[in-house]
Parts: sequence; C-alpha cells; structure tokens
Amino acid sequence: MSFPTVGIIGAGQLARMTIAPATALGINLKLFAGAPSESAAQISSHIVGDYTKSEELIAFAKACDVVTFEHELVPQSVIRALESAGVKVYPRSETFIYSQDKIEMRRKMDELSIRNPAWEIFDSHTPELSFPLIAKSASGGYDGRGVFVVNSMEELREVRGKVGAPLLIEEKLPFTRELAIMVARSPHGQAATWAPTLTVQSDGICTMTVTPIPGISDAQAVRASEIALKIADGVKLVGVMAVELFEVDGELIVNELAMRSHNSGHWTIEGSQTSQFEQHLRAILDLPLGSTALNAEWAVMGNLLGGEKTDMYRPYLHLMARTPALNFHQYRKEVRPGRKIGHITLIGDDLEFLQSEVAHAVDYMSGAIDE
Amino acid sequence: MSFPTVGIIGAGQLARMTIAPATALGINLKLFAGAPSESAAQISSHIVGDYTKSEELIAFAKACDVVTFEHELVPQSVIRALESAGVKVYPRSETFIYSQDKIEMRRKMDELSIRNPAWEIFDSHTPELSFPLIAKSASGGYDGRGVFVVNSMEELREVRGKVGAPLLIEEKLPFTRELAIMVARSPHGQAATWAPTLTVQSDGICTMTVTPIPGISDAQAVRASEIALKIADGVKLVGVMAVELFEVDGELIVNELAMRSHNSGHWTIEGSQTSQFEQHLRAILDLPLGSTALNAEWAVMGNLLGGEKTDMYRPYLHLMARTPALNFHQYRKEVRPGRKIGHITLIGDDLEFLQSEVAHAVDYMSGAIDE
Repeated sequence: MSFPTVGIIGAGQLARMTIAPATALGINLKLFAGAPSESAAQISSHIVGDYTKSEELIAFAKACDVVTFEHELVPQSVIRALESAGVKVYPRSETFIYSQDKIEMRRKMDELSIRNPAWEIFDSHTPELSFPLIAKSASGGYDGRGVFVVNSMEELREVRGKVGAPLLIEEKLPFTRELAIMVARSPHGQAATWAPTLTVQSDGICTMTVTPIPGISDAQAVRASEIALKIADGVKLVGVMAVELFEVDGELIVNELAMRSHNSGHWTIEGSQTSQFEQHLRAILDLPLGSTALNAEWAVMGNLLGGEKTDMYRPYLHLMARTPALNFHQYRKEVRPGRKIGHITLIGDDLEFLQSEVAHAVDYMSGAIDE
Repeated sequence: MSFPTVGIIGAGQLARMTIAPATALGINLKLFAGAPSESAAQISSHIVGDYTKSEELIAFAKACDVVTFEHELVPQSVIRALESAGVKVYPRSETFIYSQDKIEMRRKMDELSIRNPAWEIFDSHTPELSFPLIAKSASGGYDGRGVFVVNSMEELREVRGKVGAPLLIEEKLPFTRELAIMVARSPHGQAATWAPTLTVQSDGICTMTVTPIPGISDAQAVRASEIALKIADGVKLVGVMAVELFEVDGELIVNELAMRSHNSGHWTIEGSQTSQFEQHLRAILDLPLGSTALNAEWAVMGNLLGGEKTDMYRPYLHLMARTPALNFHQYRKEVRPGRKIGHITLIGDDLEFLQSEVAHAVDYMSGAIDE
C-alpha cells in the first residue's frame, strides 16, 4: 500500500485550500483545471481540460485513485460515464444529484422527513400563490445567484422567462437567523459533524461566520447535528457536505445543500483540530475521520470581497501589524468588485474583539475604510 | 505592489512544510532542489541544480524577490557571490556563518556575553585536558553527526584524524535537560520568540518535544527568551532561528544555533497561532510578525523515524482511528532506518495523554510495536 492520489475536478480556492492537508498527509493531488491561471492550478500539479467531456475526465482519472469535485457543474451524464468506466468518484452521481438539482433535493428532504419550506414546481397551471415567495432555478445558483424574491404573479412569470423551467418556488420564511453545519461521511459509514456556524449574509453572500453560534442551546446544536447526519446517511454521502438552515421560531428548516467543502466551513482550518479540507480527503479515501473538536472558544471568519483596489498585498502591512493573530487565506484570483478573493479567520476567547477585528480587516481589504 | 516570490535553496521537509503558509498568504514559492524526488520538489515549482555553483543560484534568484536557505550547506563564498550580484538573501552571509561554523558561533557567544560551555580549538599543543569532553567538527554536523564524546587524548587524536581540523572541544556539561527556543527577527528589527520547548533526545536525535516545558518557571522561560532575542539582535538575524540550550544547575547554556525552521519548532504548526514556517516567510519579506500565542495548553511533537517497514501509509488506518486528534506530517522521503520521515503533533490539555499517544504513534509507525 502506498500513498494514494486524489484527483479534484476544479482548481479554485477550495482545491487550493486542500493543498495544505494533502501535503501534510502525504497524499498526492492532481487537479483538472479550466485554465492554468486558476487559484489552485497556480501552485499544484494539474491538467487543463473541459469537465463536460467524459473522455477527458476518464483519461485524467487513470492517474488517480479517487476523483472528487470542487463545484457542482460536472453534468450527471459525465459523472455516470466516469462511474461506468470504473472510476472511483465521490460523492457518487446518485448522491451528488441532491447538490446539483434543488428540486431533487426538496423531494429527498420530504422523503427523509427533514423539514423543508413549503415548495412546488411552478407551471402555468399553478393555482393561487401567496406572495412574496422565493423562486429558484433548479440548478446552477450560488451566492444568491439564481434565487429571487418575487412579489407578484407577473414578476414570477418574468423570472421564469429569464431562468427557464423547471422553476422551484418556495415559501419566504420569516427566519430569525441563518446557520450552517458541516458533516463528513466515509464509505464505511463513519460520520462526524462540526459545531454549527452562524452565517451572516449580505445580498445573498456570506460575509462572516461565527462558530459556535452565540447563544445557541445545546439541544439546538444537537438538533442541527442530527439533521446533518440524517441527510448524510439518507443520501449516502461520501465526503463533506454543508447543510444551510433557516431558524424559524426555534425550528431548523433546510435551505440548501452543498456536497463539497464550503465557505461556511472555512473556519475549521484554524478553529478545529481537523479542517473540512482534510476531512474530505480522509472521507473519500475511507481513512478514519479526524477530530472535529474546537481549538478555541470562538472562531470568526470573514470573507474578503474585491473592491475598487486591485492591490491585495499592501494591506497586509497594515493588518498584520494591527492584528498579529489574523490568519490570512489569499486565493490569488483576479480582483473584481464583490468577488470572493480570500478570507481571514481569528480564533480566541473574546468574541467581541474577534468580530470587530474581522469586520475591520474585511472593510480595510475591500477599500470600504482607509484605516 | 504585488505578491512576492520567495526562493528556497533546498527542497526537503522544511521547504515542504513552508508550502502551506505560502499558499495561505498568497506568496509564490520557487525551490532550488538537488533532485525532483526531494520532499518538497515532489509538489512545488522547482528547478534542479547545484547549490555550490553561484552562477546557477544567481540565475535562480532572478525570478525571486528574496532567497533563503533550508539547510546550512551553501558555502559562504557562494552566499557572498549572491549578495555581490545584488540578490536579497536572508539570513545574510555575515549572520549565517554562526549557523555554519561552530567555532565562529562560540566566539560570537563569548563576545555577546552569552553563556557557552568552556571551549577551545584543539591542536597538538593543547595542554592538559580533562576527560570526558565533547569534540565537534566545526561544520556539517547535525542530528548528533559530527559530535563525539571523547574519553582520552588517544580517542581525541583519533577523532581529529577522522574529522580533520579545526576541531572544537568543549566541556561535557552535566545538564539536567535540553531545551530549545525559536526566535524570529525581521530586517526592521521586530523580533518574537515562542514558548521554550523541552527536547527529548535519544542517541543525539530529537525524538519528542513538549511545549511549554513542564515545570519551567516564568523566570526561566523569560531568561530563555532573553537569550534568544539577544543572539538574534547580536547576529542581525533575518528569519527564524533555533537556539538549543542545556540547563545546568538552573543556568541556560547555549549548545547549538540553527538559522532556519527547525525540528524543535515543528509543534508551532498546530500549537501556535503562527507557525515557524509562516513566521520565516513574514520575517524575510519584512512583513509584520504573527502572534506566537499558544493554541492549547500543551503541544507534543514526535518524530517519525524509519524502521524496517517501508509502508508508511497503512499505519494511518490504525493510528487515525485510535487517536482522531493526531496531526500527521509525512515528508514522503525514502524510508531508511533511523531517518526522519515525518512527524506528528497532538495539542490539548491532558499532557500525560498527549505524551503517551505520541510515543505510541512513533513506536507504531517505526514498527517497534505492533499494536
């Protein structure tokens, strides 16, 4: 037995952040990139190809013991072609569909008796609807893209004209907060969750996470963990998955699933004994899972979004001097306004300090504030 | 200003462990390797060359903003040639000499009034000596190589015959323990130390470190820090340095210096908010230094030494399942008996548990025990 090779389809920041644990564990990584300039391809062994072409992926997979995904864009037909060719792909197509198709996901949650928002597929015969409601494209949306708040039948028809069918419509829930929980599961069925995370959103984009959730009861944290474990088992997850939840009157209701390492789990790099990136490698290789214990009382993560400034190096001098405990993660992506170009994490026991320093650093990096 | 490129001369495990913080900080790494099979060259951008040839290193340095070392083997004449060619090299030749030549180091410690063992250069006219004493080659020794316990004039002459001149001889100190402290210093003079570390040695090789040192007084920890800072300032260090110390009757006496990331600082990867590898990058780039605060009450590191087994992957299944909080660092070096092929670190608040689990894992990986 020798050290295995993991192939990742995708070479963005999630693949980039997988390099560190793969290096430590001695696992070889190979990336299937769209372009050599992509975040992880800049520094890791890769080939450039088209992930919609199954013959290219099958050729890539020949050098890998296991293949996994960094995004939801690989078509089901291509994943199934890989499986038919004998490639070990995790998550498997029949699991990954719930991360790719929101209608399939809603059906599965109902089947598993996991609480969903009231939902249906919009068609021209849909009878009376109460507005406002949420309309979502079944696939392809993220960071608020493909999700619409709709106030009238006229707006709804407009959205369908833009997005196309099938269109998922859901009740607009009066949630008090949004949270997320990461879960990992391996082929032999070992599973582990991390502490649930508060996700602070702005315009549909997560700007900050706080872990554990301030004021959450033990019972509620256990409930979140039970939901994540039940879904992981129900969809036969192999790898890590983010479960995004709404809290409504103390109830937890599933919003979205993502079957890969996820922004709401970035805090685990410093905040947990095993990061989501390491755990994903362990899970897909069927190695025992690592401890998900916290390394500190609190972990606060802030996303760095591109602003008008394109120089992302110089602000280091200021922020590193101001807050020597800040952990930086630069994705080295081309800076565009509103684009996630990095994140920072701070761990410690003074939550107010952690939150204010992270908020300051985010605003300083984006150029929203000057000092 | 854009993200800088750091060139490392050497591509062993120290360069390998620098990949993770360079990736997070967005810093480009280039390695000057001896062979593509070397630990870090397996996964990082590199060229293969001969570090004794200044023209090769000068060509390599053209693509780098700063060049640094992973080992002490680059000749002084070559480092000075790089400096003359305008290459920014850290540590500089006049600093690095104290890491390369133990006689120069002893002279400098005396000049700085830092406590040394009694020492002299052995020559045939050296008058009466009291045995046993320690004889050391001035350069090239590490992990106990080049260091000899000598019991008689006859043995001493034999050692000199083997090692050559100049031969450093030192009093053999009745130390109660060996410790080490890491220090970082940047060109603008900012300096930081980590908590001193107990180094447990066996046959001149460090097998385990425990941080902080059990039972050390605050005054003694401060004293170790003062010594490290005084040396760093006195030699105009830029980068990180390990100061290895003997404790004799409560006094701290300098044993060795290493001006690079060092085995006694590996615990900082998980045990400190800023690892020695990240701090070295920050220091040589003149970025503000990161926090050296501890992430846990205790950090215990164990070196994985090669044994008869050459399969270093399969033991994962057992050890990961037994101790889910173990952090593995595989160097992916060819396994040879006694060779350092990786290390593990465990952090937490139960020192006895951490030590016994690390000791078990080390013995299990080497094949010394079977379960």
